[in-house]
Amino acid sequence: MQEQHITLAHGNGGRHMRELIEQLFAKHLASPALDTHADAAPVRLPEGEVLVTTDGFTVKPLAFPGGDIGSLSVHGTCNDIAVAGGDPLYLTLNAFIEEGMPLAQLERFVMSIGATAREIGVQIVAGDTKVVPHGEGSGVYFATSGVGVRPYDIDLGMHHIRAGDQILVSGPVGDHGVSVMLAREEFGMRGDLCSDAASVLPLTRAARELPGVRFMRDPTRGGLATVCHEIVRATDMEISLEGPAIPVRDPVQSVCEMLGYDPLFLACEGRVVAIAAEEAAQTVIERWRQLPEGAQAARIGQLAAGNPRVVIETELGGRRILEELQDDPLPRIC
Amino acid sequence: MQEQHITLAHGNGGRHMRELIEQLFAKHLASPALDTHADAAPVRLPEGEVLVTTDGFTVKPLAFPGGDIGSLSVHGTCNDIAVAGGDPLYLTLNAFIEEGMPLAQLERFVMSIGATAREIGVQIVAGDTKVVPHGEGSGVYFATSGVGVRPYDIDLGMHHIRAGDQILVSGPVGDHGVSVMLAREEFGMRGDLCSDAASVLPLTRAARELPGVRFMRDPTRGGLATVCHEIVRATDMEISLEGPAIPVRDPVQSVCEMLGYDPLFLACEGRVVAIAAEEAAQTVIERWRQLPEGAQAARIGQLAAGNPRVVIETELGGRRILEELQDDPLPRIC
Repeated sequence: MQEQHITLAHGNGGRHMRELIEQLFAKHLASPALDTHADAAPVRLPEGEVLVTTDGFTVKPLAFPGGDIGSLSVHGTCNDIAVAGGDPLYLTLNAFIEEGMPLAQLERFVMSIGATAREIGVQIVAGDTKVVPHGEGSGVYFATSGVGVRPYDIDLGMHHIRAGDQILVSGPVGDHGVSVMLAREEFGMRGDLCSDAASVLPLTRAARELPGVRFMRDPTRGGLATVCHEIVRATDMEISLEGPAIPVRDPVQSVCEMLGYDPLFLACEGRVVAIAAEEAAQTVIERWRQLPEGAQAARIGQLAAGNPRVVIETELGGRRILEELQDDPLPRIC
Repeated sequence: MQEQHITLAHGNGGRHMRELIEQLFAKHLASPALDTHADAAPVRLPEGEVLVTTDGFTVKPLAFPGGDIGSLSVHGTCNDIAVAGGDPLYLTLNAFIEEGMPLAQLERFVMSIGATAREIGVQIVAGDTKVVPHGEGSGVYFATSGVGVRPYDIDLGMHHIRAGDQILVSGPVGDHGVSVMLAREEFGMRGDLCSDAASVLPLTRAARELPGVRFMRDPTRGGLATVCHEIVRATDMEISLEGPAIPVRDPVQSVCEMLGYDPLFLACEGRVVAIAAEEAAQTVIERWRQLPEGAQAARIGQLAAGNPRVVIETELGGRRILEELQDDPLPRIC
């Protein structure tokens, strides 16, 4: 390709678009199942329950310590299949690209998509690109949909949750939210912190077949607190979180204190919240701690019959209600 | 919902986002398979080859005679499964919504998605919404991915195309492109023309099981001419189009002549181009003409061994080469 930037002609269906797809997207996303000349891709699915999910990705800046919008677009959708108890197999990819975006920058994100997909073992089987006029679109938005398969004997869901169940988290919360925020120049802060963006498959595979594991979710937008609120609304039970038990890295805590944010509302992109019966909880924690991504796994609270609300016990023994997120008290990271 | 416009808080994961999803998206897209509280949706697939596809949608204006971005987002993806010989069953939906968009306008497009999906018989099984800051996003972009199933005995593909095969089109070309263009206020033109946006399933079902039908495609971005170029590139054969045989409505022809566009490059959203062996071609045309959407179906050209190029025979008996679309000689409709 001669052009160094995306032009509107890259979206018109003609030669430039074809070359963009062949020389950039297909080159880095090649897989046996990807045929850029087909309208729809045939896929083979092993035995099991077929799962479908989708997610859209916008993030500013487009790259940050520990990842970029490309790796995020693969992890986000694969992790949704993983926490549902399945194995992700195939992805579709949509790109809304802003006119004027440097081709080299777009290529880096597409390479990141390819590398992340290969690492997880999923194939990109279909894609589409649209070019939007300069000033719209903020560089690039991606949307991915995922198809996966869940073994028939795995049955997770909020309806399985019972009073007395334990709440577990696979690692420190808020790393992703704070890392992306710090990567914005306007904050003028730098640290060693990395986004936690990663595949949660090792974690979910270690837990999903254990009897007594009821439900898993990755605490992305809205963070750990929002997952708790979703559970409360679905079960009508009360969640008590033990504040001091919730793993939060020191730099995340410091930045949050400085700027007035609550790490419990910050997005994670590589953590799992699991609900498990008392007897299964210890096994999950032990299995997770044997994995590098679960080294700081912790039991952080429990469910009880009571008022449908989320209560957090503080270090000094106080209890406060953690309200549902309303207007935007958070750094916008996307 | 109290708010009359989309705010950034509709994208933060908290209460406003939940209400937007429950009260607007889930309300109009409800189906047995949609569970807005799940990370991934289990789907049931009948016997057959599983097909996956995806498409992104941007259009200006967002509504036009004969459709809007909502109906387009369903038809576009379902039609990709249809021309591959399959039946679309499930869709995922991504929305990138611009801050400030009136909720009532967004609701109209979501209703249009719901109505179009019900009409075709596909279920929306998973979705995601992102809110982008005012000034980005142009109202709303949608992306849909589709899962469908193709009967095992259907085998379509460009590799089946042989010299002597006929080129068929199911109806007039360019209606969609011109309708969207005229709906833009800057042109100050109005007409009775409607977009052809529609499901092509009746057309593809009528043709797909006939022996001798080689390949089908819907001529969207880049139009009929671009489909011909894709075939030429894949087969190394020469396509001869009979100009006078290609159905083009009078108002489309007039607008194109006035503005200097070629209707063969304009997008259709409800037409099928089929390649069929001589003996099957007549049957396809007859079957299509019995359908309301195929009343003007026509045989418009053929393939021959020769130079890999697209040649068009004009009314006066001349022949000219139809080049691949390069830079943007077209009205931007998206």
